[in-house]
Amino acid sequence: MYKKVDQRDVDYIGSFIPKERLVSFDEISQDYAHDELGGIEKKPDILVYVLSTEEVSKIMKYAYENNIAVVARGSGTDLVGAAVALQGGIMICTKLMNRIIELDEANLTVTVEPGVLLMELQAYVEERDYFYPPDPGEKSATIGGNISTNAGGMRAVKYGVTRDYVRGLTVVLPDGSIEKLGGKVVKNSSGYDLKDLIIGSEGTLCIITEAILKLIPKPLYSVSMLLPFVSMEKAIETVPDIIKSKASLTAIEYMSLDTIISAEQFLGKKFPDTNYEAYILLTFDGNNMDEIEDEYTKVASLCIEHGAIDGYFVDTDERKKSVWSARGAFLEAIKASTDLMDECDVVVPKSKVADFIKYTHETGKKVGLRIPSFGHAGDGNLHVYLCRDSLPEKEWEQKSEEAFELLYERAREYGGMVSGEHGIGYAKKLYLKKQVGDNQIKIMQGIKKVFDPNDILNPGKVI
Amino acid sequence: MYKKVDQRDVDYIGSFIPKERLVSFDEISQDYAHDELGGIEKKPDILVYVLSTEEVSKIMKYAYENNIAVVARGSGTDLVGAAVALQGGIMICTKLMNRIIELDEANLTVTVEPGVLLMELQAYVEERDYFYPPDPGEKSATIGGNISTNAGGMRAVKYGVTRDYVRGLTVVLPDGSIEKLGGKVVKNSSGYDLKDLIIGSEGTLCIITEAILKLIPKPLYSVSMLLPFVSMEKAIETVPDIIKSKASLTAIEYMSLDTIISAEQFLGKKFPDTNYEAYILLTFDGNNMDEIEDEYTKVASLCIEHGAIDGYFVDTDERKKSVWSARGAFLEAIKASTDLMDECDVVVPKSKVADFIKYTHETGKKVGLRIPSFGHAGDGNLHVYLCRDSLPEKEWEQKSEEAFELLYERAREYGGMVSGEHGIGYAKKLYLKKQVGDNQIKIMQGIKKVFDPNDILNPGKVI
Repeated sequence: MYKKVDQRDVDYIGSFIPKERLVSFDEISQDYAHDELGGIEKKPDILVYVLSTEEVSKIMKYAYENNIAVVARGSGTDLVGAAVALQGGIMICTKLMNRIIELDEANLTVTVEPGVLLMELQAYVEERDYFYPPDPGEKSATIGGNISTNAGGMRAVKYGVTRDYVRGLTVVLPDGSIEKLGGKVVKNSSGYDLKDLIIGSEGTLCIITEAILKLIPKPLYSVSMLLPFVSMEKAIETVPDIIKSKASLTAIEYMSLDTIISAEQFLGKKFPDTNYEAYILLTFDGNNMDEIEDEYTKVASLCIEHGAIDGYFVDTDERKKSVWSARGAFLEAIKASTDLMDECDVVVPKSKVADFIKYTHETGKKVGLRIPSFGHAGDGNLHVYLCRDSLPEKEWEQKSEEAFELLYERAREYGGMVSGEHGIGYAKKLYLKKQVGDNQIKIMQGIKKVFDPNDILNPGKVI
Repeated sequence: MYKKVDQRDVDYIGSFIPKERLVSFDEISQDYAHDELGGIEKKPDILVYVLSTEEVSKIMKYAYENNIAVVARGSGTDLVGAAVALQGGIMICTKLMNRIIELDEANLTVTVEPGVLLMELQAYVEERDYFYPPDPGEKSATIGGNISTNAGGMRAVKYGVTRDYVRGLTVVLPDGSIEKLGGKVVKNSSGYDLKDLIIGSEGTLCIITEAILKLIPKPLYSVSMLLPFVSMEKAIETVPDIIKSKASLTAIEYMSLDTIISAEQFLGKKFPDTNYEAYILLTFDGNNMDEIEDEYTKVASLCIEHGAIDGYFVDTDERKKSVWSARGAFLEAIKASTDLMDECDVVVPKSKVADFIKYTHETGKKVGLRIPSFGHAGDGNLHVYLCRDSLPEKEWEQKSEEAFELLYERAREYGGMVSGEHGIGYAKKLYLKKQVGDNQIKIMQGIKKVFDPNDILNPGKVI
């Protein structure tokens, strides 16, 4: 179906990409055959480290004319196979397109190339007293990747998700043409919203080569509190009441003891407290310390009423480091605790989080799998991990399939969605279809065809 | 091309819609032939006041099978002909679908039918200490209309636009099928973002029959200040510096003396001050009065440094009424001041607002037209009115076309967009095409075809 890539294709791309940024066939490292989770492996035939929109445009034009499959990739930190070249072909790696092009203080925007890492962007703007609120756990993901999955992160409770901070995009279409969508404008009602269609489309519609992001002034203060509970149920059931109390919170994360202990073992570092079964980590921010104090006092009292044992401020440098490095290591720690794992990134209405977590425990027992989880209690997005541990392959496949079916079905019943922020990629296509139904899948396929009639861009993903 | 509607069609629809909600042919009031601006007139053949998603579905199924054009309409307050039945056919009026279905306090959402008026929704949630931040000037618009144009309003500076508050939609597709997009979830990365594609699509892709909207807790305090300046330039040039100062503002509106005087005459009510050429109206809100005071003190000092003559609090009931009723009447007042007018709803980067307003004055002089304007200095969205006054028709047509060309071209140069919140409808199609170019128009046409292969839904609009 696709043209088989050969040396002539390498030579053509080599006519405008210097050797040190072009790798082909056996020289390509196995690292580029899989993503962070590694559920599926396939190497591209050509790997190009691009430097500009024009280079991407030239490659796409060639791929379009020659019917070669193309996959764009940033840091490869995704978990659903979205950045894997299932059909071989060309992989366009954006990690050298990592310039911060412009900070526009009068329009409160920053313009970046897609290969800028989230942690680089956050550091750059915070040094200048600005704030880019989206805060996914994986700080070494690229902004291009964050946009392509509409990554959410911990601060979505107060600030929303990546989508809410993308004002404009420069993209390369499958035929190589370059388009600008949106801009530095705050409002827009000018035809169909192509920009928001691209956000979250996992590189299947076009390749993002520049983004204009909205910033806000950096809040002056940020306070976090860790609250232990005797049970996960007690902890999570507090959350809807926190929300009903109309408190202003930035983040509400939940952590179970088993996940914390995995992180301690993985990092070789102590967590401040490991005496209780479950913890909630609350963050408050703003420009007025009195107001923040009012808020956390109110919320902490409410938590104590609901069975919280205590409330520790995460205030000393040491404590901040121990709590946040543990939180940052959960995924890696769970991964290290098992031979293989797969993940479920459902999002449910906030009011259903407690019920859903209980259901993951029931499902684990029923199916016979260890299913640890952690996540964003304040926005309903849960990261649930199915661990193979030492199960034989066949049993693992059968058990994990059964567990996924149960979990996604329950999420649907609760009015949830298949993915909150990791996307559909290769791994979750079946569950997306079950969720949204044939009509919506048909519309999505129609849209894909409008952008990419020959299906050369990230084929086999999303739909 | 479309089936000519006849009595049999009326009878069919009459088989499930009672008489009092079904009007046809000559019985349809001329009010349903045009929108608020009245630039184009055409009556539908059948007007149905629907009550449910199922009714809309039945009508669409029939229209699809019989190739009848259909237009959905709320309050008809739009300004670009989006709610006019250019091809006759069926008009589905949603104004009786005006129930507030559910306030969900644990998920901070409100679920509404599309015919709920903005002012009804705002009153409902604010009575319960919640807040729906989008605040377009036209409070009698329906929520369905607000979603269909992605209306922005005055508080976009701090809170964003309608799009940012739509969590889920129930829609009826052109063939009558009913789909649910999004839900009560905060995050979503599950396939292409059809919800955001529908928002702002002006009823050309499907008909919205229910919406789940995000709420926030109502801010405890809100303070507005009116600052007079000796010239529009001095007033507007202050705005980028306000933004650079990292102050937290909710709204920054600008008002010129001529517009204020039009509003005084129109309302028969005095504005607090009419001694200066230009005014800026600032709004601050939040939960801590000290913080708000800090902010407005900082911003007012900055304005005084930039040439503001004074700063009045809009605090007494009388003053609030006089300022906000004037602000609310600008459009009507300008409309009443001239035989005919047309409008330009461009949005430019905030840093370009002063230059653009100056350019509207230059354009007015050059072309020989009166071009008053007002709008959202804090978010770059300007409402610019071309007034015919007593010009002969031919001259008006030629001059207004020339002025539009100049204004939209300048907006493009500034990185702006054709419409910030009023949409494209029938009237601005040419300018959208000039702005986004053939590639994007082709993609939008392709998307339209995916949803509506027979082009029966609001034909002749947007693209």
